[in-house]
Amino acid sequence: MGYQVAVPPRRLDATFAALADPTRRAILHRLASGEASVTELAEPFAMSQPAISKHLKVLERAGLISRGRDAQRRPRRLEPAPLAEATHWLEAYRRLWEASFQRLDTLLDEMKTHNKKKRAPSPRGKRR
Amino acid sequence: MGYQVAVPPRRLDATFAALADPTRRAILHRLASGEASVTELAEPFAMSQPAISKHLKVLERAGLISRGRDAQRRPRRLEPAPLAEATHWLEAYRRLWEASFQRLDTLLDEMKTHNKKKRAPSPRGKRR
Repeated sequence: MGYQVAVPPRRLDATFAALADPTRRAILHRLASGEASVTELAEPFAMSQPAISKHLKVLERAGLISRGRDAQRRPRRLEPAPLAEATHWLEAYRRLWEASFQRLDTLLDEMKTHNKKKRAPSPRGKRR
Repeated sequence: MGYQVAVPPRRLDATFAALADPTRRAILHRLASGEASVTELAEPFAMSQPAISKHLKVLERAGLISRGRDAQRRPRRLEPAPLAEATHWLEAYRRLWEASFQRLDTLLDEMKTHNKKKRAPSPRGKRR
């Protein structure tokens, strides 16, 4: 995948700040399955429409959503490019957590082997 | 890779909020190559040590860094688990941006084909 463009720091700031809220993440989740009007987006939340609109503004400023052409509904649509950029930034650290999971796996394996040795006495021992 | 644990929303909030700052991202970048004391971390930035300490507190509260045992240096170390969780959340959207890059590729291919057809007239046409 050819997405290797250097991302201006401010764009990453805006993307990560927009993602730091559960309602905004839920809105993106909803939009991942298709565009939706503000009313439709507000429905599942115990929130006023102005409160939802505020969240939508944050997402829009971060370039994570855009508005459709239908003048009446003004449906919102997910714009995945900033999510790709954020993932690209995080990917650089993948080797670090993969290494730490590897260490954890090794530790668990060692513990299992150790426990097996302790728990399974020889058949002779069992019959005594 | 078996990292499929559901992450509490507050942890993701804290992780994304911590990542929404270029200095904090630069600190993580530095720590990716090994632990470092606060003084060492402050060096490359035109920032006071208290200012850096504030950023370190945000990173620490988000679980992105921890303190080493050396009582004098108190070196900071990167903790990659929250980065793994954030990437895991973003991965769910990968198919969306891959689809949109695909559409872009198709569009570019179509434009190339179209331009070739326009620019390369038949030899007969050229000699006319």
